[in-house]
Amino acid sequence: MSEFEPNNPDFVAAVKRSFDRQGLMRTLGIEIARIEPGMVELRVPFSERVAQQHGYFHGALIGAAMDSAGGYAGLSLMPPGSEVLSTEYKINFVAASAGEALFACGRVIKPGRSITVTEVRAWCLRDGTRTLSAVMLQSLIRIDAR
Amino acid sequence: MSEFEPNNPDFVAAVKRSFDRQGLMRTLGIEIARIEPGMVELRVPFSERVAQQHGYFHGALIGAAMDSAGGYAGLSLMPPGSEVLSTEYKINFVAASAGEALFACGRVIKPGRSITVTEVRAWCLRDGTRTLSAVMLQSLIRIDAR
Amino acid sequence: MSEFEPNNPDFVAAVKRSFDRQGLMRTLGIEIARIEPGMVELRVPFSERVAQQHGYFHGALIGAAMDSAGGYAGLSLMPPGSEVLSTEYKINFVAASAGEALFACGRVIKPGRSITVTEVRAWCLRDGTRTLSAVMLQSLIRIDAR
Amino acid sequence: MSEFEPNNPDFVAAVKRSFDRQGLMRTLGIEIARIEPGMVELRVPFSERVAQQHGYFHGALIGAAMDSAGGYAGLSLMPPGSEVLSTEYKINFVAASAGEALFACGRVIKPGRSITVTEVRAWCLRDGTRTLSAVMLQSLIRIDAR
Repeated sequence: MSEFEPNNPDFVAAVKRSFDRQGLMRTLGIEIARIEPGMVELRVPFSERVAQQHGYFHGALIGAAMDSAGGYAGLSLMPPGSEVLSTEYKINFVAASAGEALFACGRVIKPGRSITVTEVRAWCLRDGTRTLSAVMLQSLIRIDAR
Repeated sequence: MSEFEPNNPDFVAAVKRSFDRQGLMRTLGIEIARIEPGMVELRVPFSERVAQQHGYFHGALIGAAMDSAGGYAGLSLMPPGSEVLSTEYKINFVAASAGEALFACGRVIKPGRSITVTEVRAWCLRDGTRTLSAVMLQSLIRIDAR
Repeated sequence: MSEFEPNNPDFVAAVKRSFDRQGLMRTLGIEIARIEPGMVELRVPFSERVAQQHGYFHGALIGAAMDSAGGYAGLSLMPPGSEVLSTEYKINFVAASAGEALFACGRVIKPGRSITVTEVRAWCLRDGTRTLSAVMLQSLIRIDAR
Repeated sequence: MSEFEPNNPDFVAAVKRSFDRQGLMRTLGIEIARIEPGMVELRVPFSERVAQQHGYFHGALIGAAMDSAGGYAGLSLMPPGSEVLSTEYKINFVAASAGEALFACGRVIKPGRSITVTEVRAWCLRDGTRTLSAVMLQSLIRIDAR
């Protein structure tokens, strides 16, 4: 259960619509796994195109998925007609990332008028076991959709 | 002129070899522009596959290029037989990123036995004018190549 | 209950001994509240010397307490004869910090041979209510005690 | 020479006035060394009260001085009647910090309507030689002075 009340009754549709317009998400094979108020989880099946040279998930892919998960977690709490921009984020990689799929789960720590802060965790699923891959702190701002 | 002496006389070849093994760099159209001791600059021509929905360079692409530029700047100072891993980085986006090409220039601030620290700047080239896009601080560790 | 096994049976004494040698902790009125394997909580009673001009806890005090809480969380899992150094941290302030006391609770996310990663949360206690003040991600390295 | 035009003709006085109201700066012995549009340098003479157990400048002191230097660099470009808040910062320590004095120099990278981004460098002066201690990236927001 989320602790947040959404400001947009159609927040699930708003997140999906924005996500579907991001060509890079499709290029990288990133999919939406869960959407709740203040929380969005993305999933990336393993494939060669997101791997680095040793067969792990590439750090750039992990960063991209986490930045998006946090951003959409923030968007889920914003009023209709909003878009979201990351102004900064910080990522710590804690383990090599191997497995069938990578998950990135973003959660809003503090929704704000000017700045929304999120934290994001990424982990790998391998033979039914989860291993933490990376953690992120991120700042978001809301802008009016064009 | 660089302030650093390379520990590998073949540092240019070492950076190129590692770069060429990163499938994701090719997927995203990222190219090497310059290699000096402690400094690597990457270039990304604009294309649809690296754009977000408004025709700017996608933040995830910018992060990927900057993380790689900083990592290879660090690798350029490491002895033969090294690989480099980012353990963490932090990025601040300072402007929307539009133009014909994005450049990411990584520089070693402090080469270290255990941790190397770099800073990376990204800017866009548009009609001959450079605009700063983002700044990054990054930590790297050296590992033995497999 | 902690998920970690300490590598030093006297980890509580080791944390206290190191803490007591930090003059700055005393200057700022920072006290140890809890020590568990991989977790250390510090407490700072409000006073003029740690306030900024509007009567809130000063950001620098919050950063100092959080950096120390994370560092001692890391030290609690290290073998006897260890000291700990922060190599980097990142802090997001999420609310003005007012109250009778500030708490900073550091937890190890990933103990590592070369780098230990922690997360730290700070909150204020005011009239019995807790309010989140700031969040931090931090990297630590172990060094041999002199 | 600064690349910035101040928005407050009395920016030097505005920075000094705000600085003088920070009791913690006085407690820690932090002084203003230079003020230019978009750039503020602080100086901290070495003393026991800012040392850690091995006689180096304490990391918390370094963070406090850098956070303030960046914040005042931002304030120097803001219109009259402004105050400045750090919303987040990230610091990398690159060397043990020993010497007669520590300097923290903050520079605005990007002044913004909603967010101002700065970078800050700290170095130690010892027997006439400067050694880089730490680097920081920081986000600031402007608020109306009370």
